[in-house]
Amino acid sequence: MSGPPSRLRSVLGHLWGPGHGHETTTPNHIHQLSPTFFLERAAAIEPNAEAVYHVTANGRVLRRDYQELADRARGLAYYLLRRGYRRVGILATNTPAFLESIYGVIAAGGVLVPANYRLKQDDITYIFDFAEVDLIIVDAEFEHLLAGFKKGHPNVPLLVDTDTDATEGELSGPFDEAVLEGLTFDRENGAHGWAGLQSARVANEDDMIAIPFTSGTTSKPKGVVYTHRGAYLAAVGNIVESGLNVPFGRCKYLWTLPMFHAMGWTFPWSVCAVRGTHVCLRKIDYPLIWKLLKEEGITHFNAAPTVNTLLCASPQAERLPQPVQVTVAASPPTAHLFEQMTDLNLHPVHVYGMTETYGPITKGYILPEWDARPKHDKYALMARQGHGFLTSLPIRVIKPDRPEDEAPVDVARDGREMGEIVFAGNICAKGYYKDPEATRRLFAGGVLHSGDLAVWHPDGSAQIQDRAKDIIISGGENISSVALESMLVEHPDVLEAGVVAVSDSHWGERPKAYLTAREGRAIEPAAFIAWCKHQSAISKFMVPREVEVVPELPKTSTGKIKKNVLREWAKHGRREGQ
Amino acid sequence: MSGPPSRLRSVLGHLWGPGHGHETTTPNHIHQLSPTFFLERAAAIEPNAEAVYHVTANGRVLRRDYQELADRARGLAYYLLRRGYRRVGILATNTPAFLESIYGVIAAGGVLVPANYRLKQDDITYIFDFAEVDLIIVDAEFEHLLAGFKKGHPNVPLLVDTDTDATEGELSGPFDEAVLEGLTFDRENGAHGWAGLQSARVANEDDMIAIPFTSGTTSKPKGVVYTHRGAYLAAVGNIVESGLNVPFGRCKYLWTLPMFHAMGWTFPWSVCAVRGTHVCLRKIDYPLIWKLLKEEGITHFNAAPTVNTLLCASPQAERLPQPVQVTVAASPPTAHLFEQMTDLNLHPVHVYGMTETYGPITKGYILPEWDARPKHDKYALMARQGHGFLTSLPIRVIKPDRPEDEAPVDVARDGREMGEIVFAGNICAKGYYKDPEATRRLFAGGVLHSGDLAVWHPDGSAQIQDRAKDIIISGGENISSVALESMLVEHPDVLEAGVVAVSDSHWGERPKAYLTAREGRAIEPAAFIAWCKHQSAISKFMVPREVEVVPELPKTSTGKIKKNVLREWAKHGRREGQ
Repeated sequence: MSGPPSRLRSVLGHLWGPGHGHETTTPNHIHQLSPTFFLERAAAIEPNAEAVYHVTANGRVLRRDYQELADRARGLAYYLLRRGYRRVGILATNTPAFLESIYGVIAAGGVLVPANYRLKQDDITYIFDFAEVDLIIVDAEFEHLLAGFKKGHPNVPLLVDTDTDATEGELSGPFDEAVLEGLTFDRENGAHGWAGLQSARVANEDDMIAIPFTSGTTSKPKGVVYTHRGAYLAAVGNIVESGLNVPFGRCKYLWTLPMFHAMGWTFPWSVCAVRGTHVCLRKIDYPLIWKLLKEEGITHFNAAPTVNTLLCASPQAERLPQPVQVTVAASPPTAHLFEQMTDLNLHPVHVYGMTETYGPITKGYILPEWDARPKHDKYALMARQGHGFLTSLPIRVIKPDRPEDEAPVDVARDGREMGEIVFAGNICAKGYYKDPEATRRLFAGGVLHSGDLAVWHPDGSAQIQDRAKDIIISGGENISSVALESMLVEHPDVLEAGVVAVSDSHWGERPKAYLTAREGRAIEPAAFIAWCKHQSAISKFMVPREVEVVPELPKTSTGKIKKNVLREWAKHGRREGQ
Repeated sequence: MSGPPSRLRSVLGHLWGPGHGHETTTPNHIHQLSPTFFLERAAAIEPNAEAVYHVTANGRVLRRDYQELADRARGLAYYLLRRGYRRVGILATNTPAFLESIYGVIAAGGVLVPANYRLKQDDITYIFDFAEVDLIIVDAEFEHLLAGFKKGHPNVPLLVDTDTDATEGELSGPFDEAVLEGLTFDRENGAHGWAGLQSARVANEDDMIAIPFTSGTTSKPKGVVYTHRGAYLAAVGNIVESGLNVPFGRCKYLWTLPMFHAMGWTFPWSVCAVRGTHVCLRKIDYPLIWKLLKEEGITHFNAAPTVNTLLCASPQAERLPQPVQVTVAASPPTAHLFEQMTDLNLHPVHVYGMTETYGPITKGYILPEWDARPKHDKYALMARQGHGFLTSLPIRVIKPDRPEDEAPVDVARDGREMGEIVFAGNICAKGYYKDPEATRRLFAGGVLHSGDLAVWHPDGSAQIQDRAKDIIISGGENISSVALESMLVEHPDVLEAGVVAVSDSHWGERPKAYLTAREGRAIEPAAFIAWCKHQSAISKFMVPREVEVVPELPKTSTGKIKKNVLREWAKHGRREGQ
């Protein structure tokens, strides 16, 4: 059973296409997995629980309970159904409207297409054009980024959210009006509520639910097909792995991670599943984050290592009274960072994944026996990418460069042989949207290829060494830029490090390090290189040939260091195009 | 992909039937859900974690880590594969061998059939005969209960576990020998380990995994068909709902609940999924349970209200330093019990379900706003059966006695109209084994019928009033025996109460109460009836006409009061046949 009840169906007419009637033959003991139901359920169990805390674009504090969040998502869904929109783009920061869209669009049987507002306008135009959206929900701050798209698609309307709706009963703009229109429409047509939507019942759990895009540093962004089943199992996995089901309490989840990025690693669903509070955030603002950590009782947030590094270095940093679980991913973290975080009562849950795996798919499980080891060893073990998630199949590390049609072969589990991390099972995305060739390559040999190089330790945990293209080959030795960076940041004056290869007539390649200094500190390159030579962890062939101190490292919107920009800098002997 | 790799397959020959080859067409992004993988995974991540703590039949303390538990389960699986056993009965108390059988039998592609060793021998014979087992794993203590079955099935072998295997390298009996035979067989035939078994990969998640039987108080026990998918989703739901993923630690789960009962509510899988310790227990022994609670750092256990009542009344009871989460179900608990438990730092997680729903399918979610209410009100709200589980669809309460072929109609959500609680979705069993007619009745109208009468409160929570046949109709008023029992145990001298109808010439029916007294207390029936008349919660028509004090109430093996026995006692004016 799925789709609206009979009265509503006749009103909506053709809007619900084939496959959305009662014709399904699902047996009684099975319902199709879909995470949209988590919101309807939360509002039914605990309508007064705080669902949203947010400081709006005009600086007002907004608090909404689960009843209100669910009502608003439901209103949006009926608006979309009534108007016939099925493929909805969204360009917004971490606002309540984004959350409502995740639930509203999918409850209307539609597919959500989030885009990264930090991309250049051409890429945003490309994404919404390629994904064939028929409506775009846009935060007023980013409307100008759609000028190019509008020119080519004058018939695709924009639904603007002003993110100023802080007063009861006051409509702040078109997005609010749409929500109200939908609620009125439902009320006047039988008041079917959630039962008229795709929430508890969807037609097929393997259907598409959303198309987030990869960040596309080197090529066009690729659309990644998420399914109801995949999103459900990833979201439930994240509850267990990040401990969102707080014993004797509720999680308060701070939205430092962009929602557009891999659907916020499915946390929009995970948090509602446990009736937690979404503490929304328009932008990364370290003083504000520390204020929220100290005053709002935050229990969880997710962030890339770079965000955590800057958070720990922030003047507001001080040890929190309550432990906070911080799910860390996006690029390999250093042992040094984990030690700093733990000292502040920020406890790393180290995960690893990619847009193609709904975000996290591995976890560095912390073993009690590590407590007996020296502190630095413990944090180094925590910085490994670890094992497959509860709801995934095991990871593998396979020999690279094998013919695509041959079965993958594992590398030795010796912590030395380098191979590619690959994934399998339910929290792998279905493929790339409208790109069967790229999908075939993604799943070559029946496993999902990460493109990341790793070693496999005897204990079964994997540790990333580098992106395949970032490895430095010097005198026949492989140098992991990631490993070298984690050694360089041990220097007391260094905040962050980015390492790339520069050519060397004798060794073929040698590492060059770009460094940023901690506030109030200075780094002298020659002295730094001398320091490197005296570190036992840094082998002679790994010592950087060149060191350059820069005010800031170039990063992707998800906090990864842009190695391609560093390579350009190194090649041309100057910095540009950041 | 499923089934053993090629070399092993050729050795095993015909043992893996069709459907267990590589011919499946599951796409790359999907793996079939099955909880057996949780053990293989736990051993891979944390081989040294304590998996089992057990006091053996000969009184020795046994501790096994995850590597050992997994190895033993794997050995059993290869033994079964080699010998060709596919449908395996088990008759045992909560022993390590039971746990190993749950994993070993299913990893071998077999189906497990647990029987309740407290049933009379005829019923045990019936169960194993009806389920067509080809091997029975039996704890030595219960071997005599299989005499009847053996007579009719001389060719079905027994595999006896002596539960005495406490010494490294020492074989304690046939069960241990079988494990060793299996491990040797695998080693000599390619050492495929878990990859040769049905663990990470099964052919079809909707396939049968186990056939637990109902307790069958009024008719023959019925076999309930569990699937891989259902067991997986129930087990993951239980992790979240009972909080087994202890933050910064590990769960230590005490096996007070029988493993044979609804496959231990899927907790054999849930606990391994989070690498918790199974603290096994041969029998309910209150001094021992208190010793384990105090000395072994137990974090969780599951038990029926009757077990919790006796636990709270035990002389060893004292407030624990650590909070323990106690998942309570099997019969409706009283507010009084929840208050007593909380005072001892035993925190109830109130769930409700039946064998046909893999155990728990609803939870009484505790709302923070209840803390503002009088204590007794709070505990009364906690004693409601609540809402559907995270991994279930919502419960409904429907008008009873509707034609089977008509769609169910909900009762009013007014906390007054009585109806039947029904379930839907993934944690409903597939049906009754070899009984299509009973399966059709179970799912009449497309919902799973509980047979329990409940009211539906305006907040969406359900509260059980009675089994349909236990309701007392007095002067046209419905009296819930459950509700009346919870009022009677408020009397300071009463330990437990069981209420049934007796006929009354004027009112049609009137309640009769059977009571047990707390240790060292006495109850005088006439004085007790007078007390009832002065309780504001007990309406005049609810006051028992007769009260009888008994040394013990008759109970099923799962702790439910046997109302049919009480009715017999009431009818004949004497007690017998307990």
